[in-house]
Amino acid sequence: MRTMAVIGTGLIGTSVALAACGRGVTVYLSDRTEAAARTAEALGAGVAATPAQPVDLAVIAVPPSQVCAVLIEAQERGLARCYTDVASVKAAPERAALSRAPAPDRYIGGHPLAGRERSGPLAARAELFLDRNWVLTPSALTSDETFDRALELVELCGAVPVVMRSQEHDAAVAVTSHVPHLMASLIAARLREGPPALSLVAGQGLRDATRIAGGDSRLWGDILRSNAPAVAGVLKDLHTDLSRLVPALDALAEPGGGDGDHGMRTLVDLLDRGISGLAGIPGTGRAASAGGHRVRVGVPDRPGELARLLAAVTELGVVAEDAAVDAGVDTGADGGSGLAARFTVPPPVAERMVAELRADGWEAVREHGAARLPSLRE
Amino acid sequence: MRTMAVIGTGLIGTSVALAACGRGVTVYLSDRTEAAARTAEALGAGVAATPAQPVDLAVIAVPPSQVCAVLIEAQERGLARCYTDVASVKAAPERAALSRAPAPDRYIGGHPLAGRERSGPLAARAELFLDRNWVLTPSALTSDETFDRALELVELCGAVPVVMRSQEHDAAVAVTSHVPHLMASLIAARLREGPPALSLVAGQGLRDATRIAGGDSRLWGDILRSNAPAVAGVLKDLHTDLSRLVPALDALAEPGGGDGDHGMRTLVDLLDRGISGLAGIPGTGRAASAGGHRVRVGVPDRPGELARLLAAVTELGVVAEDAAVDAGVDTGADGGSGLAARFTVPPPVAERMVAELRADGWEAVREHGAARLPSLRE
Repeated sequence: MRTMAVIGTGLIGTSVALAACGRGVTVYLSDRTEAAARTAEALGAGVAATPAQPVDLAVIAVPPSQVCAVLIEAQERGLARCYTDVASVKAAPERAALSRAPAPDRYIGGHPLAGRERSGPLAARAELFLDRNWVLTPSALTSDETFDRALELVELCGAVPVVMRSQEHDAAVAVTSHVPHLMASLIAARLREGPPALSLVAGQGLRDATRIAGGDSRLWGDILRSNAPAVAGVLKDLHTDLSRLVPALDALAEPGGGDGDHGMRTLVDLLDRGISGLAGIPGTGRAASAGGHRVRVGVPDRPGELARLLAAVTELGVVAEDAAVDAGVDTGADGGSGLAARFTVPPPVAERMVAELRADGWEAVREHGAARLPSLRE
Repeated sequence: MRTMAVIGTGLIGTSVALAACGRGVTVYLSDRTEAAARTAEALGAGVAATPAQPVDLAVIAVPPSQVCAVLIEAQERGLARCYTDVASVKAAPERAALSRAPAPDRYIGGHPLAGRERSGPLAARAELFLDRNWVLTPSALTSDETFDRALELVELCGAVPVVMRSQEHDAAVAVTSHVPHLMASLIAARLREGPPALSLVAGQGLRDATRIAGGDSRLWGDILRSNAPAVAGVLKDLHTDLSRLVPALDALAEPGGGDGDHGMRTLVDLLDRGISGLAGIPGTGRAASAGGHRVRVGVPDRPGELARLLAAVTELGVVAEDAAVDAGVDTGADGGSGLAARFTVPPPVAERMVAELRADGWEAVREHGAARLPSLRE
């Protein structure tokens, strides 16, 4: 790929342009706001100009509802040989392109799973997509050349291509992104009405849980509208969940009992289902430690010895996501009874960890076989 | 304070003990699970033993529903001169203590706003409470000596004391912590039932939004039950919010319109209320930049110049939470027309930033007067 056009120089468009420029591609920038295109140019993301010849690929980086109109306009003036977009909704733009675009075979939908709470070109970074998934949703008409160009784009941004149907994509992001965004907004909106003490008891947990609510409301309104059927379905499920949860809390709130036991079971069952749902999110510690190997280390029964071991483990650069302690075990060396610490670590690390801890005087052994997924409450 | 007892050596109890030990206090550790107390001892958090004399302060670090029973037992055997706890619900334990404890004047409720998703003594850290708020909820009976001892505890953990009534605390944490936890659990639980594509489109936003759902489900069940009246109230409000939101999404999902405009207004209004709610959470960038000063820097109209400016600003160690660009302005030096970048920075930083950028050849000026809270969409 030698030439590219980026239409829409917001966060994602400018980041794509920066990545492409960094790999030697000539990038032409445009935006309906002149200042945005010139800002992207001043950031070194390309030139704010119209190409004289058709470019290899045009990347349409506008809100989902505008993708098809921009595609039609660009195809009519022959801007590029191939076209893709980066919107986070895929079925509606695809449907529109198939029925209205001059050359639907030269279009493929795309969605890089990357973003920031800040929007606009100033927040852009060339490395925004590094190692992130980038979904491509070829339609029945998408040509091989168009598919290949999109794969090339994903590769030069350092992302990982993932291919699925547009409907499948939209159903999935409704659960993982669109509905969580709405719930974060609902929680954050409640903060406006609370007592003044709220800000004194707001901690990191709340900041994390509501961070996504900070996104641009016009863009998010557009996204949610474009995926409204899937979002409405998941919202209804959540509404039903909440309809069951409220009576459980009411029962627990009743002085002197009521049906408190049933309420408590409902509550703990939900919390447990939440914990097991987290295991499905890649990159969380718990999921990462599944399939890890166990290393067991004897700890002499003296104050501070376990702290000394944890420091030694940290010094080895080992990230042990799960660690647990057994009391009253035979620690080997002196035949005494002390503690044993068990660490779950990635398999390649286990052997080295044992060797280095032993060299340091610790009684370390590797427990063979992959560990079960450890109890999430450990 | 010279001696302390910590009852319950989980994450919080062991962290308190580590902080106290680090400040030279003699700490006696106990836990109903022997391994936990011995693990804390092995971490250097004190000695797993019963004190021979009453200690200065006993810190009860057990789930909220058990605070009062543990307090009564400890007061009956004369464990300490003063007592506090660290549970995240305050009204129910206080009520129980006032009606049932042998010496309610020697008890004060406490709640450090600190935690981790991991639980147990192995996750403990002496610096867990550093600069965090630590709520104290003296009752009408709490003695001055008890209040003073608790303040001393907060101080030696490096935390910031905040005093409020127990009911006020519980109403606030229902909104900022307990209900967000339940919503995170509901979202995470939905991930179990989704299509296989879910894990391919799960990004950092989802990880952040659901992280709190990873907490110990038995402890959280206990917390939610102990604060059930306040939690039920907020949950009902959210249920009502959701009952309004579902028809809005339904209207947007209807092919060909329906009442889509009204649906869109409802949606964007919610998103905007969410954004303004975030401003109430301390430590978020948006809130921090309110009252900042503006620095305006001319950017020559050549590709890459803005990138060079942003790099220079970063090199100065300046964290500019809000930056914006104007196009087509007079940039001064060469009389040409280029871009101007505006940064909102903390007042003490503005003067130094201007001086150092000028020394570097940039046309930087400080815009006087505190900036308005910038538009959150900028």
